[in-house]
Formats: sequence, C-alpha cells, structure tokens
Amino acid sequence: MKDMLSKVIAFDMQTGKAPIEDAQPLKRNLSGLKKIFSDQDAAQMILSKDDPLVYEFYDLHMPEKEGDLAFGSSIVYPGKVGQEYYMTKGHFHTILDTAEVYYCLNGHGMMMMESPEGDVEYQEMKLGQAVYVPGRYAHRSINLSNTETLVTFFVFRADAGHNYGTVEERGFRKLVVADGDGYAVVDNPNWAGA
Amino acid sequence: MKDMLSKVIAFDMQTGKAPIEDAQPLKRNLSGLKKIFSDQDAAQMILSKDDPLVYEFYDLHMPEKEGDLAFGSSIVYPGKVGQEYYMTKGHFHTILDTAEVYYCLNGHGMMMMESPEGDVEYQEMKLGQAVYVPGRYAHRSINLSNTETLVTFFVFRADAGHNYGTVEERGFRKLVVADGDGYAVVDNPNWAGA
Repeated sequence: MKDMLSKVIAFDMQTGKAPIEDAQPLKRNLSGLKKIFSDQDAAQMILSKDDPLVYEFYDLHMPEKEGDLAFGSSIVYPGKVGQEYYMTKGHFHTILDTAEVYYCLNGHGMMMMESPEGDVEYQEMKLGQAVYVPGRYAHRSINLSNTETLVTFFVFRADAGHNYGTVEERGFRKLVVADGDGYAVVDNPNWAGA
Repeated sequence: MKDMLSKVIAFDMQTGKAPIEDAQPLKRNLSGLKKIFSDQDAAQMILSKDDPLVYEFYDLHMPEKEGDLAFGSSIVYPGKVGQEYYMTKGHFHTILDTAEVYYCLNGHGMMMMESPEGDVEYQEMKLGQAVYVPGRYAHRSINLSNTETLVTFFVFRADAGHNYGTVEERGFRKLVVADGDGYAVVDNPNWAGA
C-alpha cells in the first residue's frame, strides 16, 4: 500500500469546522443521545418540540494503523438537558492504554475521565489550554458555557479504536450539573457499573 | 509505576509559550544551528555581532511509553540567514514509521518533509491549519514570514524518539529561500546524502 501522504486541513478556530471536502462532519442530535442524560423527563420535553444538535465532530477517517495519528475537531454546542450540560457520549479506546490530547480553541468546558477501576479525573478547559487524557481513561467533553461553543482539536493514535458500548451501558460515575452561577460535579444516581 | 494522571497546560495562542512550571523551554540560538544554513558567510556575519534566538519549543518530557502521546509548542522566530528563512533542525523519528500532527496557532510557515528514499513533500501552514506529517518523513518547520512568529502545537507518539543525526549529517534535499515577494523551494547544493 502506498504510504499516506502529508496533508493540510483547516479547522476554523472559532467554529471548529473544516471544509467538507477535507473532513466529514458527524452530527449527534439529542434524539440519538437521549439516554446519556440523567433527566429523562427533561430530554423528552425538549424532544417533543425539537431535536437539537448537541455536538458534532470532524474526523479524517485515517487508516487505523499503529504509529499513525488520527486528528480532527470536536464541537459541543451550549445547552442543557435539565440541569446537565450538553456533552459527548464519551468512550474508552479499544486499545485501552492509549492517550489522547485535546487543544481547546474556543469556549469553556470540562474533560471528564474515569478508569475501569473507578478512578475519576476531571479538568476544566479554556481557550489555549491543552488537556492530556491518559491511557485507560474513558473521556467525555462537557460544555460548561451557556452561550459559547466548546471547540477542541484532538489527536489520538490511529489504531486506538473507540469503545462506546461500555459507557453507554454504565454511564459515567460523575455528572456535571449547573449549580447557581457555576457547576457541581455530583455522583451519577443511575450509574450502572458493578 | 503509577499511571500518568491527566493534566492541563496552557500554551499561549499568540506566543506559544507555556508557564515555566508546566513545561521547560528549550532554546536554539544561531550559534548552535549555524551549519544547518546554506550560506555560512551570512551566518558568520550575524554571529560576529549577535547570537539570535532562532527557535524554541516547550516540551513536557513525557515518559517514552508506547500508547502515550507527547505534545508541546514550537516557536520559530522571523528572520533569515542569507536568503534562507529561520527554521528548526528537523528530525526523523527513531521509530521511523510514526506520524506527527501540528496545529498552527500563529504566523505563516512551511513544513518541509522528506523520506529516506528521497520523496519530498512540503506544506504551507497558516493560522488554524492542521498539518499531518506521515510516518517515515523527516520534518522541519520553516517560518516564511518576515514579521510574525510561527507557532505550532504538536503531538506525536511518546515513544517515537528523535533522530537528529541523519539530518545533521546530510541536510535536507530542498531549501526554502526568499524569492522576490515570495519564496522558492530549491535543491540544496550541499546535500550530503548518497
């Protein structure tokens, strides 16, 4: 097979969007994410009127080759379902012990992380901050702003793979909810792990 | 060994600089880079008066562990030695077939790349553009602006390693030189490969 050649892709620094000929956007509307939010009544109420776009990401579909890197942008819109902020599904890597690096291009968010053993870490991220997600940690981006879009540029090992299933079944151990003018990190009452 | 924990590091989006408690800057002045430039008389003339900082980078000294990622910022100042733009030494990865991703935060530059077999690729990079450097390619950042600093955020596999020696001995096959209002990519008359 011919080696991959070099390339240049623009990811808009405010919106995170790439030209569609370079990278396909993958869109996640609330109807497909409903069960990740803890307040199911609030989700149902929103969905009775609308199906808002919660997040999207631009991915280059790199071949899943060891030594190679995949990269793209993640865009989480501002909004809440009940008291819980809009967020991504979150995933483990299939090759569990592989890291990921995010660089925050816009907005204010949080990276929520947890290991299979239940170690929890979370880091706030703002414009110009790099977040290092260690290997073994499931991770999810959460938009903490009520007005701004959270935009991150991400890089991970191209063969890492994505395991969404474990998080879909169990949820994360912690939720992030609006609390007065700020936020609170609270136990997830619906966490379905062992 | 305890797993690496998550972390957040700010890399200033204009200057590329990180707080010194988070990442040590490594500085490369012209005196230590003299032989990478083709016009040795011009280099000597500059050095007779001054020893300018050509580039620096902020690196986190991650453990060189497979599955892990190293990241940081690279800052190439505007300037020329003769007609040749300020640039980094350039390197192969010791694990040759490992990629690197750069995201351009400021300025206007070029990523010059070449494989051991002599395949040459180069890509201009500007604010908001991601550059993918495929595995097997030596790579060097070149600042094409006369006034602006070239700032990139980089990510590579933590165990990739850096082989500077091959490039130091041979040089790159191509040089990038000022040409009227723009630049030209020309053969390196001093290239010392087979």
